[in-house]
Amino acid sequence: MTAAQPESGLLAPGWTGSPAARATDDDAYLRALLDAEAALTRAQEAVGAAPEGAGAAVTAAACGDFDVRSLAERARGGGNPVIPLIADLTEAAGVEYGPYVHRGATSQDIMDTATMLVAARTLDPVLADLDRVQRALARLAAEHRDTAMPGRTLTQHAVPTTFGLKAAGWRSLVLDARDRITAVRDSLPAQLGGAAGTAAAFTAYGVEDTTALTTAYARELGLVAPLLPWHTLRTPVADLAACLAFTAGALGKLATDVLTLARTEISEIAEVSAGGGGGSSAMPHKANPVRSTLIAAAARRAPQLAATLYGSLVAEDERPAGAWHAEWEPLRDLLRLVGGAARDAAELTAGLRVDPDRMRSGLGLTHGLIVSERLSAELSGLLGRPRARRLLTELSRRAYAENRPLAELLAQEADLKDVDLDELTDPTRYTGSAGALTDRALERR
Amino acid sequence: MTAAQPESGLLAPGWTGSPAARATDDDAYLRALLDAEAALTRAQEAVGAAPEGAGAAVTAAACGDFDVRSLAERARGGGNPVIPLIADLTEAAGVEYGPYVHRGATSQDIMDTATMLVAARTLDPVLADLDRVQRALARLAAEHRDTAMPGRTLTQHAVPTTFGLKAAGWRSLVLDARDRITAVRDSLPAQLGGAAGTAAAFTAYGVEDTTALTTAYARELGLVAPLLPWHTLRTPVADLAACLAFTAGALGKLATDVLTLARTEISEIAEVSAGGGGGSSAMPHKANPVRSTLIAAAARRAPQLAATLYGSLVAEDERPAGAWHAEWEPLRDLLRLVGGAARDAAELTAGLRVDPDRMRSGLGLTHGLIVSERLSAELSGLLGRPRARRLLTELSRRAYAENRPLAELLAQEADLKDVDLDELTDPTRYTGSAGALTDRALERR
Amino acid sequence: MTAAQPESGLLAPGWTGSPAARATDDDAYLRALLDAEAALTRAQEAVGAAPEGAGAAVTAAACGDFDVRSLAERARGGGNPVIPLIADLTEAAGVEYGPYVHRGATSQDIMDTATMLVAARTLDPVLADLDRVQRALARLAAEHRDTAMPGRTLTQHAVPTTFGLKAAGWRSLVLDARDRITAVRDSLPAQLGGAAGTAAAFTAYGVEDTTALTTAYARELGLVAPLLPWHTLRTPVADLAACLAFTAGALGKLATDVLTLARTEISEIAEVSAGGGGGSSAMPHKANPVRSTLIAAAARRAPQLAATLYGSLVAEDERPAGAWHAEWEPLRDLLRLVGGAARDAAELTAGLRVDPDRMRSGLGLTHGLIVSERLSAELSGLLGRPRARRLLTELSRRAYAENRPLAELLAQEADLKDVDLDELTDPTRYTGSAGALTDRALERR
Amino acid sequence: MTAAQPESGLLAPGWTGSPAARATDDDAYLRALLDAEAALTRAQEAVGAAPEGAGAAVTAAACGDFDVRSLAERARGGGNPVIPLIADLTEAAGVEYGPYVHRGATSQDIMDTATMLVAARTLDPVLADLDRVQRALARLAAEHRDTAMPGRTLTQHAVPTTFGLKAAGWRSLVLDARDRITAVRDSLPAQLGGAAGTAAAFTAYGVEDTTALTTAYARELGLVAPLLPWHTLRTPVADLAACLAFTAGALGKLATDVLTLARTEISEIAEVSAGGGGGSSAMPHKANPVRSTLIAAAARRAPQLAATLYGSLVAEDERPAGAWHAEWEPLRDLLRLVGGAARDAAELTAGLRVDPDRMRSGLGLTHGLIVSERLSAELSGLLGRPRARRLLTELSRRAYAENRPLAELLAQEADLKDVDLDELTDPTRYTGSAGALTDRALERR
Repeated sequence: MTAAQPESGLLAPGWTGSPAARATDDDAYLRALLDAEAALTRAQEAVGAAPEGAGAAVTAAACGDFDVRSLAERARGGGNPVIPLIADLTEAAGVEYGPYVHRGATSQDIMDTATMLVAARTLDPVLADLDRVQRALARLAAEHRDTAMPGRTLTQHAVPTTFGLKAAGWRSLVLDARDRITAVRDSLPAQLGGAAGTAAAFTAYGVEDTTALTTAYARELGLVAPLLPWHTLRTPVADLAACLAFTAGALGKLATDVLTLARTEISEIAEVSAGGGGGSSAMPHKANPVRSTLIAAAARRAPQLAATLYGSLVAEDERPAGAWHAEWEPLRDLLRLVGGAARDAAELTAGLRVDPDRMRSGLGLTHGLIVSERLSAELSGLLGRPRARRLLTELSRRAYAENRPLAELLAQEADLKDVDLDELTDPTRYTGSAGALTDRALERR
Repeated sequence: MTAAQPESGLLAPGWTGSPAARATDDDAYLRALLDAEAALTRAQEAVGAAPEGAGAAVTAAACGDFDVRSLAERARGGGNPVIPLIADLTEAAGVEYGPYVHRGATSQDIMDTATMLVAARTLDPVLADLDRVQRALARLAAEHRDTAMPGRTLTQHAVPTTFGLKAAGWRSLVLDARDRITAVRDSLPAQLGGAAGTAAAFTAYGVEDTTALTTAYARELGLVAPLLPWHTLRTPVADLAACLAFTAGALGKLATDVLTLARTEISEIAEVSAGGGGGSSAMPHKANPVRSTLIAAAARRAPQLAATLYGSLVAEDERPAGAWHAEWEPLRDLLRLVGGAARDAAELTAGLRVDPDRMRSGLGLTHGLIVSERLSAELSGLLGRPRARRLLTELSRRAYAENRPLAELLAQEADLKDVDLDELTDPTRYTGSAGALTDRALERR
Repeated sequence: MTAAQPESGLLAPGWTGSPAARATDDDAYLRALLDAEAALTRAQEAVGAAPEGAGAAVTAAACGDFDVRSLAERARGGGNPVIPLIADLTEAAGVEYGPYVHRGATSQDIMDTATMLVAARTLDPVLADLDRVQRALARLAAEHRDTAMPGRTLTQHAVPTTFGLKAAGWRSLVLDARDRITAVRDSLPAQLGGAAGTAAAFTAYGVEDTTALTTAYARELGLVAPLLPWHTLRTPVADLAACLAFTAGALGKLATDVLTLARTEISEIAEVSAGGGGGSSAMPHKANPVRSTLIAAAARRAPQLAATLYGSLVAEDERPAGAWHAEWEPLRDLLRLVGGAARDAAELTAGLRVDPDRMRSGLGLTHGLIVSERLSAELSGLLGRPRARRLLTELSRRAYAENRPLAELLAQEADLKDVDLDELTDPTRYTGSAGALTDRALERR
Repeated sequence: MTAAQPESGLLAPGWTGSPAARATDDDAYLRALLDAEAALTRAQEAVGAAPEGAGAAVTAAACGDFDVRSLAERARGGGNPVIPLIADLTEAAGVEYGPYVHRGATSQDIMDTATMLVAARTLDPVLADLDRVQRALARLAAEHRDTAMPGRTLTQHAVPTTFGLKAAGWRSLVLDARDRITAVRDSLPAQLGGAAGTAAAFTAYGVEDTTALTTAYARELGLVAPLLPWHTLRTPVADLAACLAFTAGALGKLATDVLTLARTEISEIAEVSAGGGGGSSAMPHKANPVRSTLIAAAARRAPQLAATLYGSLVAEDERPAGAWHAEWEPLRDLLRLVGGAARDAAELTAGLRVDPDRMRSGLGLTHGLIVSERLSAELSGLLGRPRARRLLTELSRRAYAENRPLAELLAQEADLKDVDLDELTDPTRYTGSAGALTDRALERR
């Protein structure tokens, strides 16, 4: 029986090669497991429960070479990789300090702590990528503050909006994601509770104040010391699920809009990828929006991965038989998908090509009816509501039937001689508070 | 074509009759829709965009009788119930003030705002129930601070813990839920953006400062004024999904533990329901843990409902064709399930019967091996690690084979003459920091 | 404490008023529960375990008036509505025959059987609606067998396809759905096992051959007699989840394509709803694709509902504490969503307006590059692969830059004098096997 | 930018080292992609659209060495790994035959076909493992046909059942899974449609009968020739999702029962793993049910993975921008989880240790009330229903209060002198049709 062959990311163009990929691979998890073990021994030394030198010795041993494939195979017996790792690390630490490896701890202490370390190490580059995204979107929003374009509801042109407001909206979601990730990033806890969360074995090994031990341990790792061991109180995992699923969805909103606006018939924006990717050799006219596609794919998967993690809140006893084990891969998947999507969103927004002319010409596709809401309001004031409505209904019908602009038909109406129809029927002048909203949204940092 | 028959909650013992049920039924939604419309007219009057008296007139009209069944039927045409409601409310407001109903708004402004109102009105009683739960658990934790019981991992007795620590852990999840719900409750935003989120129609109708309008509207409703219209920036819905799924899982952890501990073979705790429910006429010995069962059922459903809501973050354009519509029922379902589960958890924890004797006797089921971790630690100090381990392995085997307590076998070992074996093998004295952790956890308010 | 107020379907334009809505409301469930109880007594009479007349008496009693709201309230105590129903039905059956109500059965026998009855009664109209859909699509496919239109991949025009092939593809999914539903419909089992699935109580009450009893019971109800009681062997529920989630997705594919093709910029097809619905009073040009929108919303929800049902396969013991209760509402939701979507799909496909001219003109949006794949193939034969590719790349660039048709540029190439460029560059002549595939697909009945 | 580091399965004790792991790793996918490409050229040769020798040449080239890591990196550009693979394979096939690599096909043709090949190659060993499971369960069911044990509902002892019926029930789910997988396995289709599913490019390259090409291609691969290209008609993927989620749940039911019955307090069965795994060094009494735990973890994840695949049925256009890409990893995850769970279930059932004595003694835990249902039925006949019920209620109360067996109390009742109380109160004689049902279930092959 051998482990699976190495994976290369062949099925994962969405996250392969991203910082998140590197921060979550098996080597990274092994590193985090070893960091947790070493920190535990150092912390025990710090509180006087291990001899001087033990921390350094185990830390040194933890820098050695461990066979991740062998660990994976041997993990099957007990159902988690910490069990064989303790054996290997104990041996590596030698006769003198080996006994201070993992002393008093349970596998889950190390596994959960390592998972939080991996999460922290993944979220940092994710936050950096999200910052690139929000800055690119801020630039786009400012630049296109007054670029009018069709607003679309239920797939149909409704009233005009601006590309600035659209980009500002995307950015506001990205900032919401950043805020949620940051809050979770800053609260990731270490795990230390021993076999059933009572820290009893630490006491048996002479630790008097187990709170001090937990605090020292968390400090060594740059994690937060929790109020209680959380072996079956999975708030940290649920919080990660929430902020990651949110981020995937936030970027998914951006992607779905880009995909729509990049459609051949719409072509208001286009992905211009750094490497010129997305082309098709047989069809040279095709510039596929690949970055958006991969972000959209991530957004389709994240909610269900989060659901599995939420489901694992229901974790019976002091360590559950299944709920905990069901967390490991989905949480990694979420970190990867979001990490890849953030990377792709940074590339996407850096290279987005906006076509204001195309947006403007799109405003004319409904023969001017895109401003019918305004006309309805203004003409009601002039002609009374019933007459205004009758007139607009009739002229709208004719505009489509005769394929003429509504403005032209309105100009023939005697009652409207004194009305500034140019102003009234110009879609670019019916963008309401879009500019002011954009300004306000850009003030958010 | 007629609407569905009235529903009575026949399939929903988990939430029927709860405050959440009443706060989320169709009448409550209709009430919230009307509240939103009335607030909008009042807000327009406040900013000078509607004549004096319009607000009061529409508010009065909104207190009238509307046929919810007819509205539901007519909602099919346009795909949402606001469209027919505007017609009815406009008529009810009369010729003079009818024109100021819904002026400049879009259906989604009203629907989203009403949804936030319903959420607020449901979360308030949910928070009250969670407070009942946490207080009951605090009492149990304090009372059983030193009640030892078997700690269980992967279904097997591991080392002792206390019921106090267990109850404190449940409570800590409930407080986490309360904090998350409270944060979301206090941030629920009103929605106001007009057809494409630019607030253009309000301008057309003479509103100069649409921000002031939104602020007035939100204030009328006790909701927060958002930075941007959020027709397709669904952070508020995702945040609700997160705190609700978390709460369901938090209560689900409590329920799954109660279900385990109430098993016939374990019987360490029992549900004692107010009405003596859960009995079976044919099997008088059966006292089914019904409250826990229904909470567990809610916890199985919530994650997937939240996943649907997270999926709806991917909402294209200025109003999506499906993502928005897919939110309504799942969000209501989540509110109901969590509301019902909080109600049931309050009943459950109020009536939980704890059997400390049974817990203590359970500590003996492994012939004393439940303290083998401690023995291993202590005897290693006395006999050296290898000998200690050999001895314990041998005696453990014999304890099971000969069905004798480990303490008895240890007492026969000459080397251990001077050891206080009574202390060392007493499971109730191997609860580590459980008491201190419980105290610390109970300090959290 | 009172039950929830009646629901009208206010939040459910997707299924309100559909046959599925009526077949799944609380009255319909109550009817099915009563049908199951009555059938059980008749079956007991048939196998000689109840006195002559008992079946008829209980059947008559089951036709009486039961207070569904009271049942719902009283269901809370034991966690399911069968317990109070037995009390009411026993009383209604009178002193003589009351004892033969529910004799030997367990609540779950009746609840599960009723659920299967409701499923059967819902799937029949769903199948009828799917048949309307497939016939409408067959007509569209036949009519537009040779209507060329742009084939789109990753949102971009790729090569031509036909609307006939597209409609035939939609239909093939609908037939797949029909076949899956039909297979499940024909296998829906009755449930009969008694308290722990051993049928022991029936034996205690004098039934000698419990298999015969189950067979008689199933026959009374038009359901299948199962090989084993399936209280915790939930294959029938999982099979329903599978066929319903599949159907929602199949119709969702249709809806998403309609939504795309109905976009203002594309307008190749349009929803023409019976009642002229989908309009917007303020924006008379808007014809919202409401039927597609509601189908799309259903398709977003169904997978997660199915996931909850799949999760309930993990049902511990002889009756689980939560997994079973978690099935009731999601299964009903799925039946309703699919029932509503099938109804809407029937309306949608009956009224779909196809615009072949628009499709044809769309083929020109890429300046003729939509046939570049063909040109690449054909010119490689003439000019050799490298030269052909160079030429096409250059001319494609120019076609876009100079805004001229590729055909025009090709016509200027001396080497291509003898080539029938009209044929080669005509997108409507590059539809490959679309026609033949359509024909073949339409042969499937 | 480099690809992720190799993965070893460190987080995946549930499937590492299983046949499914090997059949789904990146090398296996690469193999399947190459198999698909080679089969396509051979099929083109077979229908006369490629020169003699092209098939053999490309097949030989496809046996060469390809750099999976490089392919993964280059897959990012176009969003799928087939694009770079075509380049490498074309080069490997040489100047003469290179042009016949992938001729007329689209990436998705190859990717989908490879996915079906991988599925087929994974399902075969899964079916073999399921067969091991069902045979082991058949043995257990036959052996324990009459081994009485407590039947449990809502966690409480209800009435007796047999371990034979329980094992037969588990087996019936496994057979249901086998049947569903087999049906899907036998219907896995090849994919061939070209850029937009019209097979147009094949025609351009001289294939006259594209149906014949598809048939030849499918035959080469041992897959089914589909009626239509299914680029966006994802029935095959949904069918895989359904049978895999079902299988995970079916095995999850087995696992959850084992986990319950293996609890320290119950101990009716125990996992005896081949390698003696599951032990804890610090706690020698612990024999963790690791196989069941890992199966349970898989069952918690599968439904949500299936939901993502069902969601991808909603695939717009002729190739969707995201829905397709979202399928790859979840489908592989499902194959792995189910493959690992089937492997673990085979090990679990091969080594399950059953303790009939423990089961029998468990029947006494309710002081004999586990047969109260029977007593109620029988004594009603003797004493009349009201008196029987009064008596049983009173004696049940006393049995618990006085900690005496119900049989003992009944024996003191004068009215029951002539009743065979030994028979009536013996739980092992109240197993109803359990034996007959077991026999019947075992007849299913």
